[in-house]
Amino acid sequence: MSELRTRTRKETPKDEQSLNAGLLVRAGYVDKLSAGVYSYLPLGLRVLKNIETIIREEMNALGAHELLLPALHPKENWEKTGRWGTMDDLYKVTDTSGREFALGPTHEEIIVPLVQKFISSYKDLPTALYQIQDKFRMELRAKSGLLRGREFRMKDLYSFHTDDEKAFSLYYDRVKEAYKNIFRRAGIGEVTHLTFASGGSFSEYSHEFQTITDAGEDTIYLCDACGVAINDEIIATQTKCPGCGADKQSLRKVRSIEVGNIFPLKTKFSEAFGLSYKDRDGSDKLVRMGCYGIGLGRLMGTIVEIHADEKGLSWPSEVAPFSTHIVRIGDTLHVRQEADSLYTELSHRNEDVFYDDRDDVSAGAKFADSELIGVPRVVIVSEKNVAKGEYEVKERATGTVSFAKKEDLLRATG
Amino acid sequence: MSELRTRTRKETPKDEQSLNAGLLVRAGYVDKLSAGVYSYLPLGLRVLKNIETIIREEMNALGAHELLLPALHPKENWEKTGRWGTMDDLYKVTDTSGREFALGPTHEEIIVPLVQKFISSYKDLPTALYQIQDKFRMELRAKSGLLRGREFRMKDLYSFHTDDEKAFSLYYDRVKEAYKNIFRRAGIGEVTHLTFASGGSFSEYSHEFQTITDAGEDTIYLCDACGVAINDEIIATQTKCPGCGADKQSLRKVRSIEVGNIFPLKTKFSEAFGLSYKDRDGSDKLVRMGCYGIGLGRLMGTIVEIHADEKGLSWPSEVAPFSTHIVRIGDTLHVRQEADSLYTELSHRNEDVFYDDRDDVSAGAKFADSELIGVPRVVIVSEKNVAKGEYEVKERATGTVSFAKKEDLLRATG
Repeated sequence: MSELRTRTRKETPKDEQSLNAGLLVRAGYVDKLSAGVYSYLPLGLRVLKNIETIIREEMNALGAHELLLPALHPKENWEKTGRWGTMDDLYKVTDTSGREFALGPTHEEIIVPLVQKFISSYKDLPTALYQIQDKFRMELRAKSGLLRGREFRMKDLYSFHTDDEKAFSLYYDRVKEAYKNIFRRAGIGEVTHLTFASGGSFSEYSHEFQTITDAGEDTIYLCDACGVAINDEIIATQTKCPGCGADKQSLRKVRSIEVGNIFPLKTKFSEAFGLSYKDRDGSDKLVRMGCYGIGLGRLMGTIVEIHADEKGLSWPSEVAPFSTHIVRIGDTLHVRQEADSLYTELSHRNEDVFYDDRDDVSAGAKFADSELIGVPRVVIVSEKNVAKGEYEVKERATGTVSFAKKEDLLRATG
Repeated sequence: MSELRTRTRKETPKDEQSLNAGLLVRAGYVDKLSAGVYSYLPLGLRVLKNIETIIREEMNALGAHELLLPALHPKENWEKTGRWGTMDDLYKVTDTSGREFALGPTHEEIIVPLVQKFISSYKDLPTALYQIQDKFRMELRAKSGLLRGREFRMKDLYSFHTDDEKAFSLYYDRVKEAYKNIFRRAGIGEVTHLTFASGGSFSEYSHEFQTITDAGEDTIYLCDACGVAINDEIIATQTKCPGCGADKQSLRKVRSIEVGNIFPLKTKFSEAFGLSYKDRDGSDKLVRMGCYGIGLGRLMGTIVEIHADEKGLSWPSEVAPFSTHIVRIGDTLHVRQEADSLYTELSHRNEDVFYDDRDDVSAGAKFADSELIGVPRVVIVSEKNVAKGEYEVKERATGTVSFAKKEDLLRATG
C-alpha cells in the first residue's frame, strides 16, 4: 500500500449519486472522468480482470472461441441493418476524408459479415464467438455510476446455427446455465433471476438476468415459487408465470438491475447480410443466430450494490482484488519483521495479498481503510498479537474475529 | 482445427499491400474491417495476448502499476495542453447535448489530472502507471497493415518524479532495459536498436526502438560499432554516434520500423495541469515526467516482417499462438487414436497444442497450412510414423526434421 499511490477518501464525491460509484471512488477503485466514463485504478482493474476470468472460463467451457473486434465501425455496415438511422445512442465520427464511422455499441454489424467469410456449409455450424471489449453508447442519463456507462467493457457472445430450432434451443439453454454459473461465481447468484423479456418482432421471448436491489432502474415481477421473473415491458401481455405456470397475481414486483441478457435473433441479421449456408440437401438457408451480453462494469457495480454495507465494500472471494489484507499496526522492528515475513510467505503460496505497510497512518485509519476496501480476509499483525504468537483474523463480510497461528494461515491457503 | 471455423486462404487479399497483413489475413489471424482497422481472430488474439503478457511482466518488474483509462476524453482536457486544436489526427465526437470528446490517441491529458488527486508530497514520488488499451488515430496513410492503425492496442507507461534529474535518468535507463527485454522475448532483439531522436523543445533526446527491415517506413543511421542509431529527423544536427562517439560518416543508412519510443517529458504536462508536489524544504515544485509507448499490433506486424518466409509465418516461441502443431495425416482408426492421445497428453502437460484433426483435407494442404500458420514445432502423425513407433518433428523456423518417440516429446515439454 505504501507503493500504491491511490488513496481512500472520507467523503463521497458530490457528483456521485450512486452507492456503487461513490464507494468505488472513495476506496480508490475507479475515478470518474466524466458522466458514464470511468478510469479503472489498479485495485479496480484487478476486480475487472477477475470478472473477465470468470466470464472467459464459462465461455470457453461452452466451446466458444474468443476474438477481438474493432470499435470503429464503417457506416455501410450499420446502413445494411438500418440501424445507422434508427439507433439514437450511436456515437458517430467523421474522418478528414469524410468517411463516417460508428463507435460500436454492439457488434452484430461486424461479426455477421466476418463469419460470412468462414461459414458456407451446415458442416461449419454450429459455431460461437465471443469477445471482451469496450463499447460506446451515448447515454443521456448516466447517473448510476458503473451501472450505465457511455464507455463500458462488455462480453458479447454470438452463436450461429442451422435452421434446426431444437438444436438452437438446447444451445440457448446451455448459455443460460453458463450465465447462472457466472453470476453465482461473482457472488450474486442468489439474488439474480432469469427474467422473461420481449423477443422483439421475431421471437416469443428473450431473457434477462435481473439482480434484485433497490438501486436498480428496472422493475420485474418475480415468481417466488420457481424463481423466474417477467420484466416490466411484457408483464401486461402475460397471464401466468412462464416458468411454473403460477398465477400472475402471485408475482412480486421488485426493483432490479439487468446484469445480462440473451436473445434469440433468429435470422434478423443473417438476412441483412445474406449470411447463409448450404444444407445437407443442397439448399441454401439463412443462418440462425443468438446473441448474449454481459456488461462487466455494470456487473462490478451490481456486486457492490449487493454486498456493500455502511463500512464500505465487501467483495465475494472470486472477484476480490486480493484474498488477504494484512494490516500492520505499530512500527517496531519486531512487528515489521513479522508482517513482512507473513506477506512474503503468503505471496510465495500464490496468495493475492494486499499489505498495509504504511507508516504515519493511525491504527484507526488503517482499520477503516481495510473495511472500506473490502478484501474478504483481514489479518491484523500488532505488537500484542505477535507477543501471543498469533494473528487476529477478521472476515470482512461477517465481521467474525478469530485468532490463528502463522502455520494455520499458511496451511489454509497452501 | 475442425472446431475453429476460420480458414486459411491461398491468395493474398487484393487490398493488402503489406507482407504482415497479407500473411496474417491469409493464415486466419486477423481480418481487415477497413483501412487501419483490424479484427483479431482467435489465432491472432492468442498472439496479441502473449505480447501483452511479455509487456505486462516487464512493466510489473519495473514496479509500475497497471490501470485502465477511458478512450472518450473530454475536450477540456485537450484544450488545457493546447492539443485539441493542433493535433491533426485526433478523432472528435459530439454527443446530442453538444459536448465534445476526443478519442484518445495518447493519455497524458487524462493521467496527469488523475495522478494529481494522489500526489502531493515528495514522499509520493516516484511512481509509475501503465495501461494496455485501445487508441485511435486518424491516419491518412493506413496502408502498412498492422504497422499503422486507426485503432490500435498500445501499452503506455507514464512515470512521475521529483526534480532530481539524476534519479529520473536512472529510471529512464531502467525502462530502456525493460524495452530491450521485451523486444528480445518477442524475438526481434537482434535487429532492434536504441535510436536517438528529437527531444522536442525541452529535452536533448528522446529514444526510439527501431527494428531493421525493408518493410519499415522510417530511415535510421546505425552505428555498427556500438549498435545504437540516430533517426532521420536529427541526423543533420549530429556529428558523431551518441553511443560511442564514432564518426558520423561510419553510420549505415537502413530502413526500419519504430516498435517503441520513450520520452523524457520534463514538466511539459505537469505545467499544463499544475501537477506539483511539496518538496523536503516545503517548496512547491512541478513533477517531472517520462512517457513510454509500445504499439502491440505494430509489434506483432514487425515480428511477422522479420520472421516470415516464402512459406508463411514463423513465430518466435514466446509469442507463438501454440507451441506445437500436431498434423494428423490419414484417418484410419489407429492414426486417429495416436494423434488424439498425443494431443490430450501434451495438453495435460499445459502445452499449447494446435491439432489439425480435419477430415477431407489432403496431406499437402495440411502441410501447407502448418507452414503458413507458423507454429514453432510441427509434429506429424501418419500411418507410416505410427508403424515405426515414432513421430516426425519439424522445426518451422529452420525446416529441420527429426524423429522422436512419444516419451521424448512428452519429456521435452514436461
